[in-house]
Amino acid sequence: MHRTKIRVAEDALDANATIARANRDDFDRHGVGVVNLMSAPGAGKTTLLERSIEALEGVRIGVLEGDVQGTIDADRIAGHHIPVTQLNTDPGFGGECHLDANMVRSAVPALALDDIDLLVIENVGNLVCPAEFRVGEDARAMVTSITEGEDKPLKYPLMFRTCELVVVNKIDLLPHLDFDLDRFLANLDAVNPGVRRLLVSAKTGEGIEPWVEWLAAIPARAAVTTAA
Amino acid sequence: MHRTKIRVAEDALDANATIARANRDDFDRHGVGVVNLMSAPGAGKTTLLERSIEALEGVRIGVLEGDVQGTIDADRIAGHHIPVTQLNTDPGFGGECHLDANMVRSAVPALALDDIDLLVIENVGNLVCPAEFRVGEDARAMVTSITEGEDKPLKYPLMFRTCELVVVNKIDLLPHLDFDLDRFLANLDAVNPGVRRLLVSAKTGEGIEPWVEWLAAIPARAAVTTAA
Repeated sequence: MHRTKIRVAEDALDANATIARANRDDFDRHGVGVVNLMSAPGAGKTTLLERSIEALEGVRIGVLEGDVQGTIDADRIAGHHIPVTQLNTDPGFGGECHLDANMVRSAVPALALDDIDLLVIENVGNLVCPAEFRVGEDARAMVTSITEGEDKPLKYPLMFRTCELVVVNKIDLLPHLDFDLDRFLANLDAVNPGVRRLLVSAKTGEGIEPWVEWLAAIPARAAVTTAA
Repeated sequence: MHRTKIRVAEDALDANATIARANRDDFDRHGVGVVNLMSAPGAGKTTLLERSIEALEGVRIGVLEGDVQGTIDADRIAGHHIPVTQLNTDPGFGGECHLDANMVRSAVPALALDDIDLLVIENVGNLVCPAEFRVGEDARAMVTSITEGEDKPLKYPLMFRTCELVVVNKIDLLPHLDFDLDRFLANLDAVNPGVRRLLVSAKTGEGIEPWVEWLAAIPARAAVTTAA
């Protein structure tokens, strides 16, 4: 009798990686590029996405909204007439503080994968746990607001390290804050040397062109993965 | 033979409550009142504490700093020549996103409980999980920055519900933001009707007197508890 050895996925992160790969396979099969977008609460992810939807040309975008409760962000995004799905993490006591691969898996059937090229997963606002869980994305980006202070890369290093792109938002407030941009950038380089950073104001639209170009290039990555 | 039934603490929150009570007993024995201070990253907890240390008269304050990594906030507080202890949550992968009672328990021997009347525990910056774990505090307060937007009470209801006092910080930025204060306060009342709220600017010092008075009254609660 032939027996196959199966290694038991002993810890949660191992199981998470397995499910993330299944999500990724589904996204690739539909040629959909996926971005995991993270930040602290109120850093401006949704406003940045609203701007991006208007600016993206020739790329069909969809959004998966992760929140503890409610559909506030999903309602904002839906106003732009693109496919949006809400994922709430609150069945547990107090709610989960992050998305994991299995939560995203449960949303996959609800995603309009045939009708989009790019899926942005807006994670729960939190600088710690979301960085620990892959959900099947092609790329990770984060938004950090200058109102949060210069020290955040040093205090939440895994988050700043795990992203290939750091969007530094609310630069329109620079004249009104004691924010030392050079010190922030030095702290960023201390934890993730040379990581690409974009200074933007999602509110005024200043600086968002390179962000939109970066987003628009994500579906090509999924295509490459599929072809390989 | 006499047998005592002991209910097994089956879940983590039950165990947490048991340890929180042990912490609370230790604090009470020393007549120390304890505040669990929570917020999103960068809302201004440490700046508010620095202001409070200067303004508190006749109350000996100590601070327990909770952070994933580093001692940035503890170093800032230590500059004010009060007892400060750093608790880092990063032994796990990526670090814990909150303090729990057992982490605080591990710090108790390092706290100068005989030399202080008031202990402020500055929790990890996060609007989700810290609200789920009591650590032995007499009171819970939170800081929310107006830069985070009006919708935060609706998106993180447990946090806004679990606190008896909500400090609305950075009001010096009000003229520079599209922030609708009335809408924010209506959202706050929707999740925690009538909860006490204080509008402050930790940066300029505007409005912090009632906060400092509230802080100064906390040790009396511990005394009452001890006498009971």
